[in-house]
Amino acid sequence: MKILVIHGPNLNMLGKREKDIYGEVSLETINKKLKAMARKEGAEVETMQSNYEGKVVETIQKAAARYDVLIINPAAFTHTSVAIRDAILAADMPAIEVHLSNIYKREEFRHKSFIAPAAVGQISGFGENSYYLAMRAALELAKKKK
Amino acid sequence: MKILVIHGPNLNMLGKREKDIYGEVSLETINKKLKAMARKEGAEVETMQSNYEGKVVETIQKAAARYDVLIINPAAFTHTSVAIRDAILAADMPAIEVHLSNIYKREEFRHKSFIAPAAVGQISGFGENSYYLAMRAALELAKKKK
Amino acid sequence: MKILVIHGPNLNMLGKREKDIYGEVSLETINKKLKAMARKEGAEVETMQSNYEGKVVETIQKAAARYDVLIINPAAFTHTSVAIRDAILAADMPAIEVHLSNIYKREEFRHKSFIAPAAVGQISGFGENSYYLAMRAALELAKKKK
Amino acid sequence: MKILVIHGPNLNMLGKREKDIYGEVSLETINKKLKAMARKEGAEVETMQSNYEGKVVETIQKAAARYDVLIINPAAFTHTSVAIRDAILAADMPAIEVHLSNIYKREEFRHKSFIAPAAVGQISGFGENSYYLAMRAALELAKKKK
Amino acid sequence: MKILVIHGPNLNMLGKREKDIYGEVSLETINKKLKAMARKEGAEVETMQSNYEGKVVETIQKAAARYDVLIINPAAFTHTSVAIRDAILAADMPAIEVHLSNIYKREEFRHKSFIAPAAVGQISGFGENSYYLAMRAALELAKKKK
Amino acid sequence: MKILVIHGPNLNMLGKREKDIYGEVSLETINKKLKAMARKEGAEVETMQSNYEGKVVETIQKAAARYDVLIINPAAFTHTSVAIRDAILAADMPAIEVHLSNIYKREEFRHKSFIAPAAVGQISGFGENSYYLAMRAALELAKKKK
Amino acid sequence: MKILVIHGPNLNMLGKREKDIYGEVSLETINKKLKAMARKEGAEVETMQSNYEGKVVETIQKAAARYDVLIINPAAFTHTSVAIRDAILAADMPAIEVHLSNIYKREEFRHKSFIAPAAVGQISGFGENSYYLAMRAALELAKKKK
Amino acid sequence: MKILVIHGPNLNMLGKREKDIYGEVSLETINKKLKAMARKEGAEVETMQSNYEGKVVETIQKAAARYDVLIINPAAFTHTSVAIRDAILAADMPAIEVHLSNIYKREEFRHKSFIAPAAVGQISGFGENSYYLAMRAALELAKKKK
Amino acid sequence: MKILVIHGPNLNMLGKREKDIYGEVSLETINKKLKAMARKEGAEVETMQSNYEGKVVETIQKAAARYDVLIINPAAFTHTSVAIRDAILAADMPAIEVHLSNIYKREEFRHKSFIAPAAVGQISGFGENSYYLAMRAALELAKKKK
Amino acid sequence: MKILVIHGPNLNMLGKREKDIYGEVSLETINKKLKAMARKEGAEVETMQSNYEGKVVETIQKAAARYDVLIINPAAFTHTSVAIRDAILAADMPAIEVHLSNIYKREEFRHKSFIAPAAVGQISGFGENSYYLAMRAALELAKKKK
Amino acid sequence: MKILVIHGPNLNMLGKREKDIYGEVSLETINKKLKAMARKEGAEVETMQSNYEGKVVETIQKAAARYDVLIINPAAFTHTSVAIRDAILAADMPAIEVHLSNIYKREEFRHKSFIAPAAVGQISGFGENSYYLAMRAALELAKKKK
Amino acid sequence: MKILVIHGPNLNMLGKREKDIYGEVSLETINKKLKAMARKEGAEVETMQSNYEGKVVETIQKAAARYDVLIINPAAFTHTSVAIRDAILAADMPAIEVHLSNIYKREEFRHKSFIAPAAVGQISGFGENSYYLAMRAALELAKKKK
Repeated sequence: MKILVIHGPNLNMLGKREKDIYGEVSLETINKKLKAMARKEGAEVETMQSNYEGKVVETIQKAAARYDVLIINPAAFTHTSVAIRDAILAADMPAIEVHLSNIYKREEFRHKSFIAPAAVGQISGFGENSYYLAMRAALELAKKKK
Repeated sequence: MKILVIHGPNLNMLGKREKDIYGEVSLETINKKLKAMARKEGAEVETMQSNYEGKVVETIQKAAARYDVLIINPAAFTHTSVAIRDAILAADMPAIEVHLSNIYKREEFRHKSFIAPAAVGQISGFGENSYYLAMRAALELAKKKK
Repeated sequence: MKILVIHGPNLNMLGKREKDIYGEVSLETINKKLKAMARKEGAEVETMQSNYEGKVVETIQKAAARYDVLIINPAAFTHTSVAIRDAILAADMPAIEVHLSNIYKREEFRHKSFIAPAAVGQISGFGENSYYLAMRAALELAKKKK
Repeated sequence: MKILVIHGPNLNMLGKREKDIYGEVSLETINKKLKAMARKEGAEVETMQSNYEGKVVETIQKAAARYDVLIINPAAFTHTSVAIRDAILAADMPAIEVHLSNIYKREEFRHKSFIAPAAVGQISGFGENSYYLAMRAALELAKKKK
Repeated sequence: MKILVIHGPNLNMLGKREKDIYGEVSLETINKKLKAMARKEGAEVETMQSNYEGKVVETIQKAAARYDVLIINPAAFTHTSVAIRDAILAADMPAIEVHLSNIYKREEFRHKSFIAPAAVGQISGFGENSYYLAMRAALELAKKKK
Repeated sequence: MKILVIHGPNLNMLGKREKDIYGEVSLETINKKLKAMARKEGAEVETMQSNYEGKVVETIQKAAARYDVLIINPAAFTHTSVAIRDAILAADMPAIEVHLSNIYKREEFRHKSFIAPAAVGQISGFGENSYYLAMRAALELAKKKK
Repeated sequence: MKILVIHGPNLNMLGKREKDIYGEVSLETINKKLKAMARKEGAEVETMQSNYEGKVVETIQKAAARYDVLIINPAAFTHTSVAIRDAILAADMPAIEVHLSNIYKREEFRHKSFIAPAAVGQISGFGENSYYLAMRAALELAKKKK
Repeated sequence: MKILVIHGPNLNMLGKREKDIYGEVSLETINKKLKAMARKEGAEVETMQSNYEGKVVETIQKAAARYDVLIINPAAFTHTSVAIRDAILAADMPAIEVHLSNIYKREEFRHKSFIAPAAVGQISGFGENSYYLAMRAALELAKKKK
Repeated sequence: MKILVIHGPNLNMLGKREKDIYGEVSLETINKKLKAMARKEGAEVETMQSNYEGKVVETIQKAAARYDVLIINPAAFTHTSVAIRDAILAADMPAIEVHLSNIYKREEFRHKSFIAPAAVGQISGFGENSYYLAMRAALELAKKKK
Repeated sequence: MKILVIHGPNLNMLGKREKDIYGEVSLETINKKLKAMARKEGAEVETMQSNYEGKVVETIQKAAARYDVLIINPAAFTHTSVAIRDAILAADMPAIEVHLSNIYKREEFRHKSFIAPAAVGQISGFGENSYYLAMRAALELAKKKK
Repeated sequence: MKILVIHGPNLNMLGKREKDIYGEVSLETINKKLKAMARKEGAEVETMQSNYEGKVVETIQKAAARYDVLIINPAAFTHTSVAIRDAILAADMPAIEVHLSNIYKREEFRHKSFIAPAAVGQISGFGENSYYLAMRAALELAKKKK
Repeated sequence: MKILVIHGPNLNMLGKREKDIYGEVSLETINKKLKAMARKEGAEVETMQSNYEGKVVETIQKAAARYDVLIINPAAFTHTSVAIRDAILAADMPAIEVHLSNIYKREEFRHKSFIAPAAVGQISGFGENSYYLAMRAALELAKKKK
């Protein structure tokens, strides 16, 4: 079982910026925990972060043949990227959309996701725990595929 | 730790209707699994289902003082009930919104939730697994409160 | 052949209120005529009226296995109830939407029906006759099912 | 008693096109059945079909003095013709709007009818039976006028 | 003179929840004051609270013949209930709409009231005093009817 | 000087229908008065009425080379015909839009005119006098062209 | 017969500004011509121009009892003044709305007039001639009142 | 205690215009009654009416330091004046918005108030009584400030 | 192989009107070139132009059984005709939508096409060349059908 | 070089009201600084403030011939005044729009400016410094005109 | 003659993904065919594909001086990229917009193109043939420039 | 004091493209002038231009700790980039939004800025001078921070 985790723009600043909103945990710590969770279930995890939409698109394209599930926190790209939506649709690999904050409590334009209709499901609002819940969901999906 | 699980309208028909969409599992089975999950962590779970908005409102009102976390699948009330939103806001008890299906793949009117801005977070699209992920999130929240 | 007739909120006041708009006929009279019409065709009719959305939902749930066709005048619930729409979709029983008045001549918000896309068809504007036309349509549908 | 039946654009193709949607019955057969139904009640029926909005307008204008009720399936003109709406309003002859399919299950733009507010009522979704229900309603209206 | 006061959903929690927003006063206290005010003018007051839309509808239906004026704080139902609007329209009894908070300072969806066009007038934003002002208005209306 | 006057759909019923709204005057009388007005100024007037959009389009096409000014009451086509708008734009002949009634007092959809941006100006609301004012404006425009 | 002519904001600059759009004629010249036209028919004309909405409102209020018809070019106030609309509605004096330019060829926000539904009719797009056509319409209205 | 009462545009015509809508009472009478009501409670009342937005703005500016509460019927300015809204926000003096008629029963554009979010509360629909209810509310607010 | 080419309203004026926008070429010349192109590929071309929506509808109806592909420049009907859309859908004959000008550079209302979702594809903006490109596409489609 | 500075409604309260939002500086101080800045460059500055839209319009009308540049902080009129927009368009004098606060951080309705499309440019959000930046821009524009 | 062909995001997956929608042909094959077509006419073709908006922008910038025509399939960027629109506008090189699928048959958000108003024309819905039709159009445009 | 200047997409073409709109000045010249201005005040300036949203995001991320103020002309990204908005919000470094042209005179979609609510203020419409005004504002902000 192989799971790919993609973090969208500005998530490399996690734990360094706006700590009152996003918490003190860094992306590295989250990635480590995700890998540990997966390892317990005999699964491998690859993680990447990019501030480039094009890079995210290409990572998904390449992952299609090699990974069982995609976990993606599209961050700002959630609301603006049709290219990532299309990449997910083409990848034919179940995707799980993750958000640290509850996007429905924020500005109007953050309530609309281009990614959601291309994903299996969405988890938002639980801080770093959103990722760990997504990993559990991903492991379930990966197991079903086997 | 005490956790309340509320199932909205038509969920009593789960496993009996539209099985191709919602799966074969019944609400009783889901409730049992949720209770088992909680018991392992030393938590108690109460569940209820109602097709009456007023009943849901009153269940939340009464739970406020007695439960640590609320898990709610508002089903059709998601899109129409300000009363449940107000009840949650007044209850001062963290709420987790759950959906079996990915509401962002369905009719336009199902994309808007009155409950989401009153909840901690939202989990949608994972079938019955949405509930179990929510239970994990609830247990985390309940532990933090202690 | 068994046909269920559901009358939505405020229809219990028929013939007692706003007679210039809705006419002098009472719900009892309508129900009697509907039963007489059905009896002639060898069909049975059950009627119910409720001002509670939850009650309407549960009546539909229970009817699913036992009735051939549903005739429903959702009245005010037409424009506000996703729960009834979901109940009809789940019931897998053909539904006919009825309105006494022509809803397209009234306030803007009455032009939109949550029920219509879940029904076989809609009959509106013929006063009590809307019900009798619906009964004819229901008997046709019931016969085809046999 | 005289009743006029108008069929809008493309209805001359009925039974020849898209049979899976509209059924196998032809317009001629429908017209015959309508006439037979009326004859039993001592009423006369005239029918016409046109793909020209102007022709429909003029048929209504001329009918005003000579017919008791108008049954109209405006088809595509439902959503685009103010001229037919105005003709009906001017004709001072009760009109019944008919649709073979349930227009509320189709594209968004088909949910809005320019004709509905000018008609007595609307019957949609019952296939050819929509016409026969309309004829019954028309006969009732014609009788009341006498 | 008889005046009916209806309190909508969640108002039973008044004085127990969100005290910073709604104040410390309980519904019982408000009801007592309203009765006292009325008694001074020789009027009787009946009060009820419900979290069920159907219950509110039926209370209005029954009141129509027996009360002179209706004071209603529809709370969350303000924005979602066509059934209560219809019940008021049918009751032919002047209604006064009351809100504790200034609904125009709150979320966009709270700015629209289904009840307002069916009421004589609206009083919002004065906390518990909104009720007492409404009672004065009601007494005036009741006197004029006599 | 030659002036063309076009009357849109249903205007052939003028004086015969809805007299309380449109007055008792017939189209023939209006045409006669318009011709008399023009004759005094040494101008010729041609008039036509059609319920066919295509006929109106072709009349404008043919008029382009032969008439100095167009007076048009597009009636229902005002709100639905891009073809007439295009015909006027192509005709390179000044057009004056006329309405008997004040379209801004009527249904929302009548407030928008496809013709207005293609016309020199618009006169609406003065009953038959709208035409005579338009004729005066047309004669002024025709004189300026000479 | 007495006719009041009101010119809205910036019309005092007529003939001095944007001559390519509005022409070379000054407001004084227009006023003179209007008075001459009226004198021939035995009518008196008063004119005023103001850049103050309040002044326009009060002029209309005072005119109500003393003038037969109001001609008003509300200019920029067309799109922003509810107060002038209310003043006209209260004045119970027929009003004619005039525009020099064709407002339907200009910016979107100029297509909506608060004044139009309170006026008898509207004349727009004929340059200074719009006023003279309005005067003719006003004289007709004044005569009918006598 | 000092209370300022501002009447917006066209209210100087009260009792002189549209009596069927607004009643026979004049503004002078209302002002007298308001002063009498206040005097009983030991409060002083100043009243003013203006058809000029600028005048209303300046009256509020000057009142800020000298009055305890503002009662304002913004009339037409309700829907168009950001300047009055800003003046109230800057004045730091509680304001009560009053309307004679129920603005929610009137044209769509009258449902939106620029003033409401800047006011403590709103009272609409009770005719002249709206003012007296507002005065009671104002006296309550003034007493609390003391 | 048989290909039908339909030209919508006002296209009979091509080369005679607005030459700066649409060029100097006439419809006859375009038709000749289209026929020559087809002949080279052994295909037959029939062309027609109409300013009547009804005529276009009927031409499509009749073509269904006899032609392989339809090329249509719906012109003004693009934005207003549901009847032509329905005729194409019923004809079960691949249709290619053509526009001389780039409709996305023009007025907002021209950006929406009722025809596009019923066509195979759309070619717009290349002047007369739009037709020749469409003919090439049509020949490809016709060949594939054989 | 002569520069006119116009301050819109409520700006006379600057430094006296809402100091936390707008700062402690008064309009007099700003005017003095603006004059000093201009004097250094050999330019003259005239300033005015008004709460009357009409007064602002007339000041612009008179300035047209006598000033090189207009600096205007339209304040509340930004969002409501077409008359000021028209005055600027007619004045043929470059205008610079200034705002103390960042209007794009405030209520939705403040994001739309009627003035912006009539101005050369806009400076917003820098507190009193917005004015000084505008003065620099104005001096540049005035120099280029010389 | 030199022609540049740009393929937007995810088009590198052509022939590898969603073959039922986009066909079996690969981008390489399309590029080869395009080059062959051009070579016959003595033209050179350069092709590029990128998933990076920035890369597409820079390719257009550099092409401006060196290519005669641009063929671009903006794919997902069609609906989200103002930067590409601006690059095309600045390049002063005719651009042809191409789509494999008929975007008007897909999700609502795909109906709006930021590129279309900056292009000469648009060809959509013909699968790979859309490119070859565009190449023909490009060769025509390039020839005209020579 | 250190100030970062970011130029968005297509600004590298400044002075090379559309000179009639954007002027003849190149980005290099602007950068030089900005540096010279800053040097006089003892401040350092770094400049960068990118056509990649991701590059802009990362430049802002890195600048956060090392620069006092950010000047950004987001160009096309103004209307499409949530990622840059988020980067600015996270950077906790005051940002000034700059536009060469007056975006409020251009296409509707350019009136909305994702950046504006995240910036201190906005300067638009003064050509290259917009940058110099922004530099002055930046120096003021930087001084205040010291």
